[in-house]
Amino acid sequence: MTERSVGYVETKHHHLKELFRLVNGDELAGVSIAYETYGKLNSDKSNVILICHALTGDAHAAGWHEGDKKPGWWDIVIGPGKAFDTNKYFVICSNVLGGCKGTTGPASTNPQSGLPYGLSFPRITIEDMVNLQYKLLKNLGISSLYAIAGGSMGGMQVLQWTVSYPDFMKKAIVLASTAISSPQQIAFNEVARQAIIRDPYWNDGDYYGGELPKQGLSLARMIGHITYLSDDSMHDKFGRDTRENEMFQVESYLHHQGDTFTSRFDPNSYLYLTGAIDKFDLSNGYSLAKSFSNIESEFMIISVSSDWLYPSYQSEEIVQALGSNDINVQYRKLISHFGHDAFLLEKGQLNYLLSTFLGHLTVGDVMSEDVSTLREGCTLEEAAQLMILNNATHIPILAASGRITGIVTSWDITRAVANKISSIEKILSRDILTSHPDESLSNAALIMEDNAISALPVVDDRGCLVGILSSDTISAMVGRGAK
Amino acid sequence: MTERSVGYVETKHHHLKELFRLVNGDELAGVSIAYETYGKLNSDKSNVILICHALTGDAHAAGWHEGDKKPGWWDIVIGPGKAFDTNKYFVICSNVLGGCKGTTGPASTNPQSGLPYGLSFPRITIEDMVNLQYKLLKNLGISSLYAIAGGSMGGMQVLQWTVSYPDFMKKAIVLASTAISSPQQIAFNEVARQAIIRDPYWNDGDYYGGELPKQGLSLARMIGHITYLSDDSMHDKFGRDTRENEMFQVESYLHHQGDTFTSRFDPNSYLYLTGAIDKFDLSNGYSLAKSFSNIESEFMIISVSSDWLYPSYQSEEIVQALGSNDINVQYRKLISHFGHDAFLLEKGQLNYLLSTFLGHLTVGDVMSEDVSTLREGCTLEEAAQLMILNNATHIPILAASGRITGIVTSWDITRAVANKISSIEKILSRDILTSHPDESLSNAALIMEDNAISALPVVDDRGCLVGILSSDTISAMVGRGAK
Repeated sequence: MTERSVGYVETKHHHLKELFRLVNGDELAGVSIAYETYGKLNSDKSNVILICHALTGDAHAAGWHEGDKKPGWWDIVIGPGKAFDTNKYFVICSNVLGGCKGTTGPASTNPQSGLPYGLSFPRITIEDMVNLQYKLLKNLGISSLYAIAGGSMGGMQVLQWTVSYPDFMKKAIVLASTAISSPQQIAFNEVARQAIIRDPYWNDGDYYGGELPKQGLSLARMIGHITYLSDDSMHDKFGRDTRENEMFQVESYLHHQGDTFTSRFDPNSYLYLTGAIDKFDLSNGYSLAKSFSNIESEFMIISVSSDWLYPSYQSEEIVQALGSNDINVQYRKLISHFGHDAFLLEKGQLNYLLSTFLGHLTVGDVMSEDVSTLREGCTLEEAAQLMILNNATHIPILAASGRITGIVTSWDITRAVANKISSIEKILSRDILTSHPDESLSNAALIMEDNAISALPVVDDRGCLVGILSSDTISAMVGRGAK
Repeated sequence: MTERSVGYVETKHHHLKELFRLVNGDELAGVSIAYETYGKLNSDKSNVILICHALTGDAHAAGWHEGDKKPGWWDIVIGPGKAFDTNKYFVICSNVLGGCKGTTGPASTNPQSGLPYGLSFPRITIEDMVNLQYKLLKNLGISSLYAIAGGSMGGMQVLQWTVSYPDFMKKAIVLASTAISSPQQIAFNEVARQAIIRDPYWNDGDYYGGELPKQGLSLARMIGHITYLSDDSMHDKFGRDTRENEMFQVESYLHHQGDTFTSRFDPNSYLYLTGAIDKFDLSNGYSLAKSFSNIESEFMIISVSSDWLYPSYQSEEIVQALGSNDINVQYRKLISHFGHDAFLLEKGQLNYLLSTFLGHLTVGDVMSEDVSTLREGCTLEEAAQLMILNNATHIPILAASGRITGIVTSWDITRAVANKISSIEKILSRDILTSHPDESLSNAALIMEDNAISALPVVDDRGCLVGILSSDTISAMVGRGAK
């Protein structure tokens, strides 16, 4: 375990008391949701980040389970000091509906029959997955997200979230994904499904308790793995090397990946989840730009230069549709030869891009609105007393209109005492710098640094004080204050 | 059937009397080779073109079999007036060793056991396929090729031919292929093989006479088909359209391709042929340039802009390795969105590129070596008599050394008669243009056109006459004279 790990973690389970209604009208009873959380929820619950996993992922995104040989699937970017900094953020990841890692899916027991659902499990969509995540958050008392992020199928969930619950999150991050599954993606999913379905042990999905369709599931995974790597990375990783048994390295690798997968994934889940991916089309066969018209969050879209399964043009389509709605969107391409898998591997680039985007805060996002102020004409003593009372080093002085006219600091008080000045008017700093709630945090931080000031009053368009930005807050946010 | 078709054709069978020895030392008895021919073999057997087929192709490259709904697999470029012009060339295509379309393969009867070979069929290589084609040609009395061409696995055979029998062909054409199978290509072949092997009816290859492993073979074909198309062409061809049964069009297409394939291909052949493709590495794990050092033929290498299964860089590797050996090589990229399949579909571009390359003849390739000549000092009558006798309009006059000193034409004779000149010396054209056997035919044609002459003597490095090039010959070759 590295120093920057969230450490040992456990998967929690949330049991939905109410029926869960799917988009198609079907209802599921007794739904369970597996989830993990990292970091601490702050007092106003404003630091929550939801992570959405890909096809074969799970709730275990970071840290270690007892006995694990490797950490959660996105440990490279989740943890203290990493992009999803658990010193700042409260990170949640849940297993998707239809999955097989603790959330209700086709392998779960149907409470009505007492038997595993199998193919009687209703068809689900990406929207259903998102709606269940929404239920989970609500039941955990969370009613907004600072950010939401996911790659591949996780990216689809992020996009769906911003369309379904447009005012729920500030920032959305979509990696190596698409808003519309392409025929090639459908084709690869279909051959994988056929590999499972054609395994005689699949038995129309009714294999629980008996022999599993392992051969088919393993073959499906082998097919998938080819699409997750680039031609170039395969040259690098395997070349034409062979093993003792005359198999090519690449063949051994695929066999190994296929075999180990069968012990950790349910074949029916593979069918249901790939089905949900195939049906995903946020344009509704019409216009992506139109579907995005209500989105409120700002976006970072990330593609991978060598990803041929989710090629960059699909990310660029999203960027264009967001842009046409004047949505704030940043587009970055990971320069990587890892192919689709790069979103799980490119540690350096990802941490840089994600933390820059997450850190791209406005002053309004982090300013303190709870400011102690005094009116013009107050005394030196009143100012000093307020400072002591509220543990505040800076007291803005306001005119009757609410406009800021000056600021008094503990240093000013000290100076007055030293010089035997009794009037606050004589020590007040009147030539003060201010900020605006919409100003970028990094810009405000720069001004404070350049002018060696430790607090910046924030005023609205009319010049009225609406908050204060302190260097302590900034240090905590950008991680500079972390010990 | 179109006008430019070779018409109805039949597959012929050649039975090898001798044992056929494989590269690995194994010997096969009673080998049969299925082949087809189109066009006529010329008297000096110098117009033969060998066509090599891809993985699931066969000897039926052009024309129609009785009852067929479509013509041979490369009918778009083989036929009268097409690139492989059957008015000029004698075109041969044979089914590969290990195949299942008439040439001996794993489905054939093992003469020793009287049973189908199945997995007792020896492992074969691209080199073995080529060696068997060589046997066939030799037994048909053909000891050189004007050209050899093939795409995909056919291109591998072409490359192997030029390495194994470097002085056998003048021109080699390789389309959408590689000199070294890549790990990604191996990976796709391996999952296709596993689809077959994991079908319970495969029964270790011993399924003949019983239930066939159709599900596995069909799945293998579905996987293959994804790789033959480009993402772009799938968008065009299928989009996200669905059918009545809610299947996506692309799924229906793949199912149809898979299903129809099972009635025409032997699963074991699929295993053996993909195995041969995977083993193909003309660099021998060392240097392609070194392996190409003995090649004598000139090359045209063609890749496809949207082919991601055999990407252009693989063609460019071949071009570079040929170039480093000073081998005459032309490289062209088909601009196509059809993906790998483009080499079977891009009719216009292919006919243009291939016929240009095939027509890129030298004077030596087409000049007539059977020239009527006279010695200096001959009479006007002798010249006229020779013309009439041999139906020749141009008679070169040679010195005792063999060097050409002039030329006399029927027009000169006419002029002499008109002007009552009796001496041949006085009418002889001495200021004559000549060509060299290595000069490009198009260059020589240009000279003849520019100077309005209808015959060009061809002389060797010492100035001795070695042949004559007539405008009639050129017209026939470049098709300009075709009515």
